[in-house]
Amino acid sequence: MNSNLTQLLQQLNSSLHLTSQQLKSIEIQELAFLKHLPDSVSQSSYFIPVNIFVFVLLTLGLTYVFIYRKVSPDNDKAIKFEWATPDEAKPHWKGKRLYPTGVRASEDPSMIQCYCPATGQFLGKFKAFTPEDIDIAIKESQVAQKEWKKTTFSERKKVLRTLNEYIANNQEGIARVACRDSGKTMIDASMGEILVTLEKLNWILKNGEKALRVSSRPGPANILMQYKKAEVRYEPLGVVGALVSWNYPFHNLMGPLLASIFTGNAIVIKCSENVYWSSQWFIGLAKMALKVCGHDENLVQLVCTWPEDADYFTSHESLSHLTFIGSKPVAHKVLEAASKSLTPVVVELGGKDSIIVCDDVKDVGAISSIILRGTFQSAGQNCIGIERVIAMPKVYDQLVQILSQRVQELRLGSDIDQLEDIDMGAIITDARFDAMEKLVEDAVSKGARLLSGGKRYLHPNYPQGHYFQPTLLVDVTSNMDIAQNEVFGPILTMMKVDDVEEAIRVTNGTPYGLGSSIFSRSFKTADYIANNIESGNVAINDFATFYVCQLPFGGVKKSGYGKFGGEEGLQGLCVAKSVCYDRFSFINTQIPKPLDYPIANEKKAWKFVTALNKCGYHNSKWEKVKSLFQLARNAN
Amino acid sequence: MNSNLTQLLQQLNSSLHLTSQQLKSIEIQELAFLKHLPDSVSQSSYFIPVNIFVFVLLTLGLTYVFIYRKVSPDNDKAIKFEWATPDEAKPHWKGKRLYPTGVRASEDPSMIQCYCPATGQFLGKFKAFTPEDIDIAIKESQVAQKEWKKTTFSERKKVLRTLNEYIANNQEGIARVACRDSGKTMIDASMGEILVTLEKLNWILKNGEKALRVSSRPGPANILMQYKKAEVRYEPLGVVGALVSWNYPFHNLMGPLLASIFTGNAIVIKCSENVYWSSQWFIGLAKMALKVCGHDENLVQLVCTWPEDADYFTSHESLSHLTFIGSKPVAHKVLEAASKSLTPVVVELGGKDSIIVCDDVKDVGAISSIILRGTFQSAGQNCIGIERVIAMPKVYDQLVQILSQRVQELRLGSDIDQLEDIDMGAIITDARFDAMEKLVEDAVSKGARLLSGGKRYLHPNYPQGHYFQPTLLVDVTSNMDIAQNEVFGPILTMMKVDDVEEAIRVTNGTPYGLGSSIFSRSFKTADYIANNIESGNVAINDFATFYVCQLPFGGVKKSGYGKFGGEEGLQGLCVAKSVCYDRFSFINTQIPKPLDYPIANEKKAWKFVTALNKCGYHNSKWEKVKSLFQLARNAN
Repeated sequence: MNSNLTQLLQQLNSSLHLTSQQLKSIEIQELAFLKHLPDSVSQSSYFIPVNIFVFVLLTLGLTYVFIYRKVSPDNDKAIKFEWATPDEAKPHWKGKRLYPTGVRASEDPSMIQCYCPATGQFLGKFKAFTPEDIDIAIKESQVAQKEWKKTTFSERKKVLRTLNEYIANNQEGIARVACRDSGKTMIDASMGEILVTLEKLNWILKNGEKALRVSSRPGPANILMQYKKAEVRYEPLGVVGALVSWNYPFHNLMGPLLASIFTGNAIVIKCSENVYWSSQWFIGLAKMALKVCGHDENLVQLVCTWPEDADYFTSHESLSHLTFIGSKPVAHKVLEAASKSLTPVVVELGGKDSIIVCDDVKDVGAISSIILRGTFQSAGQNCIGIERVIAMPKVYDQLVQILSQRVQELRLGSDIDQLEDIDMGAIITDARFDAMEKLVEDAVSKGARLLSGGKRYLHPNYPQGHYFQPTLLVDVTSNMDIAQNEVFGPILTMMKVDDVEEAIRVTNGTPYGLGSSIFSRSFKTADYIANNIESGNVAINDFATFYVCQLPFGGVKKSGYGKFGGEEGLQGLCVAKSVCYDRFSFINTQIPKPLDYPIANEKKAWKFVTALNKCGYHNSKWEKVKSLFQLARNAN
Repeated sequence: MNSNLTQLLQQLNSSLHLTSQQLKSIEIQELAFLKHLPDSVSQSSYFIPVNIFVFVLLTLGLTYVFIYRKVSPDNDKAIKFEWATPDEAKPHWKGKRLYPTGVRASEDPSMIQCYCPATGQFLGKFKAFTPEDIDIAIKESQVAQKEWKKTTFSERKKVLRTLNEYIANNQEGIARVACRDSGKTMIDASMGEILVTLEKLNWILKNGEKALRVSSRPGPANILMQYKKAEVRYEPLGVVGALVSWNYPFHNLMGPLLASIFTGNAIVIKCSENVYWSSQWFIGLAKMALKVCGHDENLVQLVCTWPEDADYFTSHESLSHLTFIGSKPVAHKVLEAASKSLTPVVVELGGKDSIIVCDDVKDVGAISSIILRGTFQSAGQNCIGIERVIAMPKVYDQLVQILSQRVQELRLGSDIDQLEDIDMGAIITDARFDAMEKLVEDAVSKGARLLSGGKRYLHPNYPQGHYFQPTLLVDVTSNMDIAQNEVFGPILTMMKVDDVEEAIRVTNGTPYGLGSSIFSRSFKTADYIANNIESGNVAINDFATFYVCQLPFGGVKKSGYGKFGGEEGLQGLCVAKSVCYDRFSFINTQIPKPLDYPIANEKKAWKFVTALNKCGYHNSKWEKVKSLFQLARNAN
C-alpha cells in the first residue's frame, strides 16, 4: 500500500509537473499567473497568488485612477463662458415689421437685409463680402491653422466640450436665434438644430480620434514583398470651405465647423443671405469657445456674398476642400467654379425621400405621427424630409383616414415671443409659393385628391410672414410633377402601391436618391427593400435616424455625391497619406542586378522579370516554385 | 508515513481539483481541452485528450479540405483561354513606316491613325467614336451590368483569376503589344505594365471581399439611442467611366477595369487616341475572360474620341462615376463637363515628385540605381516618376559623380523586334520636344549644369521614332521653370539642399503633391520628413512602392483628388449605403407624446426636449441624471 501510494504520488507529481510545463508552453500573457504552479507537491500555497493578483490589480487600478486624475488636471474639460443672446431673439422683442420684405434692400445693392420670415421684423442690414473681404478671411484662417494643426486631440476635444457645455446649457437662447432668423418653431429648432448638433459633438468626442488613427493596411499581395509595411495617415488639409443652406442655420453651420476643427483644419463658411443675421451670432459662439480655450478665433470664419458673386469663393485657390449643402441648380455652378481651382467638393443636394409603409405594420397611428414629424418639421424645409409616403393598399387607406384628420389640426404661427401652442412655423421666403401651388394644381388636374391646404397662407397676426398651409395630397402617381420634383415645403404626398416590388420601383423612379424610410414588421422584407432602393441613406422602422446616428451622410444620383458625417466625414477632411516602409531595417529594396542600368543582357533581364512576376503572382503554386529557379538562374 | 502520504495525497487531490475548477472558470475557448482535467487523481489519463485533440483536429482539417474541394468544385478556378497576339506585335514584323507620323490622318478627320512611336510603323486607322457610338457602348454595358451585379464574389474572382492566369502565362505577348503602341522597352513593360497589374489582380483577390464587407458603425453617442444599430453597405454604382492616359496602355486600362468589375459595376473606358490600337486588344482580352467564364462581354467597353469631342462622354448622364488619369489642363475640362451631369470624379494628375536623399545614407550606388529606374523607366513618362532629386551636400556630390557616368551609358532604341540591349525607349509623341528643350535651356541660363543630353534625338535606325536624349541636369534651383513644371520625360534634375528642413521646403515648393521618396538611414528622420511633406503618397527608403502596395493612390494640391487603388479605391466605386435599424425588435422609436402633432402644451414639450438633449449629451453625469427626472415629469 505504501509503495503503491508512493508510486501513485510520484506519478501524480510528474503529471502535475507536466501540466505545469504544458501550461507554461501556452504563451498567453493574460494567464501568466498560471505559470507559477509549483513543481513540487510539498506546498499547496500556489492559490495565494490569485488573491494577491486580484488585490494588486485593484490597488494598481485605484492608484492609476487617482494619479491619472492628478496628472491630467482636466486637460480637456469644458470651460464655461458667456455669449449673450441678442435682444432680437428675446421674448416680446419689438422689432419694426418690414413691408415689403426681402433680402435685397433697394437703396444699396451691396447690403443684405435680414428679417424674420415668421413676422417680417427687421433684423439688420449687413454688407455682403467683396472678393477682398473673402481674401482677408481666408488669409486670417490660414495663419490660425498653422498653429491649430499642431494641437493634440485632447486640446481639440476641450474646445468641443466647451461648446457642448454651452449648447446643452443654453438651448433656449440658441433655439430663439435660429427661430427668429428662419421662422421655425422652438420644438423644430430643438430637434433639428440642437439635438443633431449635440449628437455630432458627442459622436466626435467619443469616436473621432479612432477614425483618424493611423490605418494599417495589408500591403502587397506579392509573396516576395512581404517585408513592406503599408499604412494610411490622416493629416489636416489646411483651410476648407463650406457653403451651407439656410434651413438649419445653427446645425448646418456647426456640422462642418466641428468636423473641420476636430481634424485640425481651419474653416471658412459661406452662409446663405437668408440667415446671415443668426449665422454671425453662431460663428461668434464658436469663436468664443476657441478663445476661452486659448486658441486663435480666426480659425473659423463666416463670409456671406450674394449668390451671383459666390464664384470667387468657390474657385478660391486657397481652399483645399468644399462642402456644399444646397440645391441642384446651384450645385452645377459651384462645381463649375471649383473645376477651375481643382477643389474637391462634397455635394449634398435635395431629395425626393420616400417612406415606404408595408401592409404588415402594427401601429399605424404611431407611424402617422412619424410621417407628420418627418413632413412638417421646419415647415417641410428639410433635405431629408419625407417627400413621398408610399404605402401598400390596406395601410394606405388607414393612413389617409388618420392623416386627413391630423393634418387639419396643425396650427401655423410664430412661437418665440410667447410659447403659443403652434405646430408649424414659417417658410424662409415667399419666392417659391407660386411653384408650390402649381405643383398641387398639376397633381389635382391629373387625379390627385387635395384633402387639406394647397395654398399660401396669410397669417392674421403676422401678415408680413411667409406661411404655407399644411397640405395633404393623396392618390398621387408617378406621372405628376410633384412626384418627381422636390417640394421642400409642407406638402404631404401619398402614393398607393400594390406590393414591395412596386414600392421599390416607385421609390427609384425619380432622379434623386438621398434618404428613405422603410416600415415593416418583417425585418427580412425591410432589409430586402433597403438593399434594392437607390438611396444613400436608409432608416428601417424609423425616420432619418441614419443622420442622427452619424452614419456617413450623402446621396446618390442627382442628390449629390461624397459623404459628410461619421468616420468618412472626418477622414474626408484630411489628406489620406499613403506611406510604405520596410518592416525590418535590414531588408531594403534594391534594383536587381539584371535590371540595373545599363542593362547588361536584355534576354537574361527579361527571363528574370518574367520569373519575378510568375513567382509573385501565378495562380499555381507549382509555377511559383519553378519560377524561383528561373529567378535564381538569371539573377546575376 | 502512510497516513502522511494519504494526507498529502488528499491535499494534492483537492489542489488538483481546485486547479481544474480554476481553469474551468477561465473561459477561453481555445483552451477548452484544459477543462477536461480530471477531478480525481486515480487516473492520470488526462494527457490522452491532448493527443486525441490534435488527432481529431487533423482529421477534421483533412476532411474539411477534402469535402471543401468536393463541394466547391473549383468554383473560382481560372479558365485557360486563347487570345492571340496580333501580327504587328510579333518579332521582326514588317510594317510600313509613316512619314510624317501623327495620329491625325489628313484625309479623313474622323479616323485615328495609330503608329509605333519607336519606329514610326503604321498600325491601322480606326474611326473615332461619335456620340451615337458612345450611347450604344454605354447602353450595352448597362444591360450587362443588370446581370453582373447579381454575381457572387466567387464568380467575380473566377474572372479575375482567369485574367491572372492569362497575364502570368503570356507576359511576352502583352509586353510586345504595349511596347509596339507606346514605344517603351520590354523591361519597362514588364515592370510598369505587367507587375503592377498582377499585383492589383492578386491584391483584389486576396483583400477585395473584405474591403466590401458590411461595415458596422458605432451608432449614436446618445445613451438613450443605444438600441440603434448602424452600418454601411457597399453596393455597385452601375456603369462607371474611366479616362486613362497613354503612358501605360495595359495597366492604366486594366486598373480601373479590374476594380470596377470586382465591385459589380460595368465600365466604359475612354483610352487615349495615342494608344487606341493596343487598347482594343487589351479590352478584347478582358472581354474574352468574361466570355469564357460565362458572362456578357459587353460589361467592359472601350471608346475613343478626339479630345475635343470628349465632353459628350464626360458629361454623360448614365455614368455614375469617372476616374480621370491625365493632365491638369484636361482635368479642368473634364470637371467642367462632369459638373453638368453631377458625376463624381477621381482626379489623378501629374506631379513633381521628389526623392529626398539624406546625408546619412549608406549605399549611394544602390540609391543611384533606384534614381535611374525611377527617372528613365518608360522614358520618364510616369505619373509618379522621379522629377527632382533633392539631396544633401555630401551625398549630392557623390550622386552627381555616379550619375554623370551612368546617365551617359544609357542606350536608346526599340527592342521588340530583337532583344537588343537597350535601356530606354521612345516618347509617345514629338509634340512636347520643344517645351522640354526649352525647360533645359531655361535652367542652364539660370545656372544649372547640363551634364548629359538635353535635346531630342534622331535615332539612326528609327528616324521616324520619337526619342529624347537621357538628360542629367544638376544644380537646379527652385526659381527655374524645370523645378516647377512637370517634365514627364527623361530628364534627371538634381537639387542640392543643406538640411532636412530645406529638403521639406523645396519639396513642398511646387503646386503638385503626388508621390515622393525619402532615403535616410534613420527611420525617425525619414518619418519626420514623411509627416511634413505635402504629398499624397510616400515611400520611405524605396521608390513608388506605395503604388505597388495597393495603398489608396491619389495626390494633393494640383495633383488632383480622390483615391483609386486599395480599399478606398474599391469602396469609391460603390454606393456606400448608410443603414440603421433597431437592435431589438421589441424596441422601436416612437414620437414622444409631448412632441406629437398637434402639440398639446408647448411649454411642456419644450421642457421635455431640452431635458432629452441634456440627458443624452450633457458633459456632466449629474446633469444627465437630473434631466431624467425632468424628462419623466414632462413625458405625458
